[in-house]
Amino acid sequence: MGKAIKTAVIGAGSAVFSLGLVRDFSLTESLAGSTIAFMDMDEERLERVHNLARRYATEMKADLRFEKTTDRKKALEGADFVINTALVGGHEDQETERKVLEEHGYYRGLHFPYHQLKLMLEVARDMEKLCPDAWLIQSSNPLPEGCSLMTRETNIKVIGLCHGHYGYRNIAKVLGLDLNDVTFQAPGLNHCIWMTHFEYRGEDAYPLIDEWIETKAEKYWKTHVPTFMDNQMSRAAVDIYKMIGLFPIGDTPRAGGWWYHTDLETKKKWYGPVGGFDSEIGWAQYLDYLRERVNHIARVVADPSVSVTKEFPPVQTDEQQVPIIDALVNNNEGRFQVNIPNNGVIPSIPDDVVVEVPAIINNRGVQAIHVGKLPKNLMLHVIIPRISIMERALEAFLTGDKRILLSIFLHDYRTRSVEQAEAAVEALLALPFNRDIAEHFKW
Amino acid sequence: MGKAIKTAVIGAGSAVFSLGLVRDFSLTESLAGSTIAFMDMDEERLERVHNLARRYATEMKADLRFEKTTDRKKALEGADFVINTALVGGHEDQETERKVLEEHGYYRGLHFPYHQLKLMLEVARDMEKLCPDAWLIQSSNPLPEGCSLMTRETNIKVIGLCHGHYGYRNIAKVLGLDLNDVTFQAPGLNHCIWMTHFEYRGEDAYPLIDEWIETKAEKYWKTHVPTFMDNQMSRAAVDIYKMIGLFPIGDTPRAGGWWYHTDLETKKKWYGPVGGFDSEIGWAQYLDYLRERVNHIARVVADPSVSVTKEFPPVQTDEQQVPIIDALVNNNEGRFQVNIPNNGVIPSIPDDVVVEVPAIINNRGVQAIHVGKLPKNLMLHVIIPRISIMERALEAFLTGDKRILLSIFLHDYRTRSVEQAEAAVEALLALPFNRDIAEHFKW
Repeated sequence: MGKAIKTAVIGAGSAVFSLGLVRDFSLTESLAGSTIAFMDMDEERLERVHNLARRYATEMKADLRFEKTTDRKKALEGADFVINTALVGGHEDQETERKVLEEHGYYRGLHFPYHQLKLMLEVARDMEKLCPDAWLIQSSNPLPEGCSLMTRETNIKVIGLCHGHYGYRNIAKVLGLDLNDVTFQAPGLNHCIWMTHFEYRGEDAYPLIDEWIETKAEKYWKTHVPTFMDNQMSRAAVDIYKMIGLFPIGDTPRAGGWWYHTDLETKKKWYGPVGGFDSEIGWAQYLDYLRERVNHIARVVADPSVSVTKEFPPVQTDEQQVPIIDALVNNNEGRFQVNIPNNGVIPSIPDDVVVEVPAIINNRGVQAIHVGKLPKNLMLHVIIPRISIMERALEAFLTGDKRILLSIFLHDYRTRSVEQAEAAVEALLALPFNRDIAEHFKW
Repeated sequence: MGKAIKTAVIGAGSAVFSLGLVRDFSLTESLAGSTIAFMDMDEERLERVHNLARRYATEMKADLRFEKTTDRKKALEGADFVINTALVGGHEDQETERKVLEEHGYYRGLHFPYHQLKLMLEVARDMEKLCPDAWLIQSSNPLPEGCSLMTRETNIKVIGLCHGHYGYRNIAKVLGLDLNDVTFQAPGLNHCIWMTHFEYRGEDAYPLIDEWIETKAEKYWKTHVPTFMDNQMSRAAVDIYKMIGLFPIGDTPRAGGWWYHTDLETKKKWYGPVGGFDSEIGWAQYLDYLRERVNHIARVVADPSVSVTKEFPPVQTDEQQVPIIDALVNNNEGRFQVNIPNNGVIPSIPDDVVVEVPAIINNRGVQAIHVGKLPKNLMLHVIIPRISIMERALEAFLTGDKRILLSIFLHDYRTRSVEQAEAAVEALLALPFNRDIAEHFKW
C-alpha cells in the first residue's frame, strides 16, 4: 500500500487535462486514499471537472477524494504536490494579440508571456508559505522561462513536464519499426530537443532515417495528408536534421529557424498543406480539436446517465504527472523526461537554465542522467539563441524595463526598423487585457 | 639600461603602422640595442619601410637594428615579440566582396574573416616552433575571433591591441573637460566596449554627459560637421547609451544594433551627413585618408634629402605596442587596454573568449584588472549576440562545415529567405580570391 497524498491542481478547469489526471490516479493503486484539490477561477468549469472526477472514481471504485475551490491558497495548503496547468487569458486573448501584431509586420505574432510568468511565480511564492516541501509540477507553457524563473526566484522544487519527446514514436511508426524495440534519448530545452540516441534492437537506427529520407521521404510528403499535429516527419524536420546532424523531436520541428515561417506559402512548403501546427490553418485545426474534446466532456457532464468510463476508457494516459508522483512517493522508480535546472547536465549551458533531460525518479528525488556536450553547431545555431530569447523575457519580466521589451522586438527577425518595433510594443501594451503589463513597464 | 630584444613585425608593409612603431622604439631608451625584423610578402613596400626606419633611427641617433625579409619563418626565429599587423588581401578585395554581397541584399557586405584567421593561426603555429616563449601582439582585426582562436589552438601568449578605448577623450573634449583630470574604464569585447567608469576630478562624470545630452546635444548634431572618425558623440552613440545605460566607446557606436544601419539614409540619421565610419561615404573617406598618409610616406621615401623626423616629428604615438614591450622587458609597469582570454575577469563570459579589459603589465606579465559583472541588459542586448557571431565564425573556420557558413548568413538580420542566404554564400565563394575558402567548405 502506498501513501495518501494531497495534490493541488491549479487551472483545473482545463477539463481534458484534469480528466486525464483522474484517469491516471484511478489506475494507480499505490496512490489510493489520495486527495485531489481542483482549483480554478472559473466556477462553472471547476464544477464540471469535479462532477466528472467523482463519477469517474465511483465507476472505477477508486479510493480518491476530490476538493474544489476558487481560492488558490486553500488548494495549496498542506499539498504534497502542486500541478500548475493554468493558461492565463486562454486562447482568445492570444488570437487578438496575434492579429494586432500582424498589423505591425509580425506574422503569427510575438508573444511576451508576462501573465503566465506572473502566475507561475505567484504560485511558487504561495507554495513557499503554504506547502514549502511540496513538489511543483509545471504543466503549462512556457517551460524554459517559467521553470527557470521559479527555480531562480524561489526555493520550491520544480519539475516541468511536456509530451513532445514522444515524437520519437512517430519516427518509429513512419519507419515501420516495432515500438517495443526502440530506445531513444532527446535532451535540450523544452520544445527544442534533439535525438542524440536512437536505437532499434540495440543498434543505431539513424541509418534507417537516412535511408527513409533517401528513398521514401519524397513520396511520403507527396501522398501523406498531414494534420496539424504531423510535423515530426515534415520537410522542415528533415531540413533541420540536415543542418544540425541530430533529428529534432516533438515540437522542435515547429521552430528550427525563422526561415521556415516567413509566410503561409513558405510554411506550406516545409510542413505540407496545413502549414504546420503554428500556421493560421494548423492552429485553427488545433483550437477546433480542443473545442471538440471539451464539448465531448461537456456532453458527458450534462448527462448523469452516461457511463464516464465508457466514454473515456480507463487506459493510462501518456502524461508523466501521476507516474512521477508515484515514483517520488512510493519509490516506484522510473525514467522520465523532465525540465529541471541544468546544473552541469549539459556542459556549457549555465547551471540555472532549466533544460529538458532524461532523469531517474524514485524516493531519493529527481536525478538527471548526465547528457554531456551537445554538438557545437547545435549550440550555436539553435540552443544559445533560444536561451537568449528566454533570458531577455525573464529580464524584461523581472525589471519592468521597457527597453528590454523593445530589445526583444528589435532582435526578432521580422523587425525592419526601430519605428516598427516601437509601434508594435505600444500596440501590444494598448490591448485592454494587457493593461497590467503596460503599467509594469517603464522607460 | 634595458635589454636588447628582437621584435618581428608581420605585415610590416603597412608603412603608417611601421613608422609609428619605429618612432616609439626610437623614443624608448630602455629598449636601445633592439632589433626590428620587418616581414612582408610585398618586397617594394618592405623596402620602403626599411628605408624609412633606418633614416628615422639615424636621425634620432637611436641604437636600433632593422632586418627585412619576405620569409616569415626567418623573421620569427629568435624573436622575443611578434607584432602581427597583416591584413590579407588588403582593402580592395573587401570592396569587391562587399559589392557582390550587396547584390544579394547585404548592404555594406558581410565579411567572413577566413584569410585573416588562417594567417593568424599560421603565425601562432610557426611561433610554437620558432619562438615558443615570445609574446604575440596581435594588431589587426578581427581581435575577438583571432585572439580567441590563437589562444584556444596554440600555447602562444597573445595580447590583442586596438586604440578604440581612447574614444573617452572625444567625450571629454566635447564636454570641455581637462583630459588630465579624467579617468575611465571601458571593458567588453574589442569594438564593443562600454564605459563602466567615468570620473572627472575624482567624481562621477556621467551626470555631465547626461547634462550635455539634455542641453547641448541637439545643437552639436545640427552644427558640428563630423568626419568619418567622429562617431563617439553621434546620435547613435547617445541612443545606444539610453538603451544600455553605459556609454559605448571608440568603435562601439559604429555597431550597436542592425537598426542603425539598414541603409544610407538611416545611417545619416544616426551618424550625421557622412553616415558614420562604415557607410559608403565614411569608408571612402577612410580609404582616402589612408592613401593620403601612404602617399606622404612614399614622397618622403623617394627623396633621401628630406628629414624624416621633420616630416614625422618624434612624438610618442598612442599605440600601446612599444610601452607594453617595455613593461614586459624592463618592468616599466603600466596600465593598458588589452585583449586577452577572459578567465573570469568578466563573470558569465566563458573563460576562453578573448575580452578587452584593463590590465597591469610589468615583468610578471599581463594581469587583468577584475572587471566584475556587466549589466545584464548589456550582456543580453549586445555582448552575447556578439560572442555568438564570433563562435559561429570560429566553428565555421575550424570545421570547414558549409552549413555553419550558411548559418552565419541565416542569422544575419538582412536575410529574408534561405534562398537569399544560399545564393550569397555561393557568390562569396565564387570570388577568385576566395577560391581557397570555397575549397575549405564542404556540405
